[in-house]
Amino acid sequence: MKSLHLTALEAFPLVKPGDDLPDLIWRSLTENNLQIQSGDILVIAQKVVSKAENRYRDLSKVIPSDNAEKLSRITGKDPRFVELVLQESRSVLRAKTNTLIVEHRLGFVCANAGIDHSNVESLSNTTEDWMLMLPENPDLSAAKIRERLEKETGCEIGVMIIDSHGRSWRMGIVGVAIGYSGVPGLVDMRGHKDLFGYELKVTQIAAADELAASASLLMGQADESLPVVLARGFPYPLRESSFRELIRPSDQDLFR
Amino acid sequence: MKSLHLTALEAFPLVKPGDDLPDLIWRSLTENNLQIQSGDILVIAQKVVSKAENRYRDLSKVIPSDNAEKLSRITGKDPRFVELVLQESRSVLRAKTNTLIVEHRLGFVCANAGIDHSNVESLSNTTEDWMLMLPENPDLSAAKIRERLEKETGCEIGVMIIDSHGRSWRMGIVGVAIGYSGVPGLVDMRGHKDLFGYELKVTQIAAADELAASASLLMGQADESLPVVLARGFPYPLRESSFRELIRPSDQDLFR
Repeated sequence: MKSLHLTALEAFPLVKPGDDLPDLIWRSLTENNLQIQSGDILVIAQKVVSKAENRYRDLSKVIPSDNAEKLSRITGKDPRFVELVLQESRSVLRAKTNTLIVEHRLGFVCANAGIDHSNVESLSNTTEDWMLMLPENPDLSAAKIRERLEKETGCEIGVMIIDSHGRSWRMGIVGVAIGYSGVPGLVDMRGHKDLFGYELKVTQIAAADELAASASLLMGQADESLPVVLARGFPYPLRESSFRELIRPSDQDLFR
Repeated sequence: MKSLHLTALEAFPLVKPGDDLPDLIWRSLTENNLQIQSGDILVIAQKVVSKAENRYRDLSKVIPSDNAEKLSRITGKDPRFVELVLQESRSVLRAKTNTLIVEHRLGFVCANAGIDHSNVESLSNTTEDWMLMLPENPDLSAAKIRERLEKETGCEIGVMIIDSHGRSWRMGIVGVAIGYSGVPGLVDMRGHKDLFGYELKVTQIAAADELAASASLLMGQADESLPVVLARGFPYPLRESSFRELIRPSDQDLFR
């Protein structure tokens, strides 16, 4: 029977800068009595990757540029925070009260360049000044975790790092892939025939994002106690890929 | 252990106009040896709902309006097809070569008003002239299926109808909810405290869409042999809701 099974690792430890995340994941899998099988995909919340990679920035040390000051007045956001967002971005798509949508340096479009302070562990007494940025190179982070787990298990697996993004036309946030290794971003159904022999015209399934949404559903958002999900039953062959597959080229973007 | 399990019903029959879809689903669950439990959500592909509700339209009988002719020249799409799209839409958001993005009469934004001919079963010899529209009222369709299954089983469940939509900034299509009954569209985390005592600011999780993406991953797109998925382990309480929860009001839409 065709099925997809996702399990969240329980009692995952709080992650601190410098922690060996692949090791924490490997231990947690063991403690959860979960055995990896070939074809499994491990889905990891961006925040624990960023923490392990010490992607914290101290807001009190950021000096806002003129542009950051200007965007701060438009959005109502702290100018130092806006400066950090700009440093992580290629361009600003939309700025208005409470809203700052950018093209992240990695290529995807999101609010606030994925930076936030919610759930950021205290590094000092001035906790509120610490911001957490996205991983430097999420594809590479995923590849390192994958390499370690494949070495431990002898299995061929995929590893994916996810965040939650808003959508232009729909309410609420959903899990999306921001980096992966061994996971197909898109699955191309163009050229396949449907049940009645017609050729499907424009069907590229964003399979990585569909899996990201599945895992995100289990992880929730209110706390970080479930940052790692093991997915079994992904219905497409695993292959080498990059999150760039999911980035719509700006000349195909209807809204720029 | 927190887990989410999705199972596709195998050997689901081809659905024809007038078929009793709740009955087909109930029988298929039995044939698949699947027993519904309270808290389960049944996820159903839009196409089989549309077929059972005879939402076919014969393109050869459609007379295009002037506006449809105009948009046909811009998009390169058949003017009769464009006319059907316009009849199902409140407004056109974008029209260019091969692309027609509309606000559907139900409120969501999608390409071609969700109409297509792929996988549409032959009703006559001129198969290519038959188009399949979205269900008239997907929330109501979901409620009817839910009522029947709750009556059969004595369980409290959710039922969701899904389609696949493109995204403005990301490549590929993902499953989204277009109607449901007993399923929360959004789960509001605003006011919850995170791990470190901060109040989460803007966190509304589009839980129904995350589940839609999960089920869509299992269903695939190339054929319709897996149009129904049973989901167990949805991590939020079921409640009465409407797909309208997921529609971003146009005054909050950054791109209109």
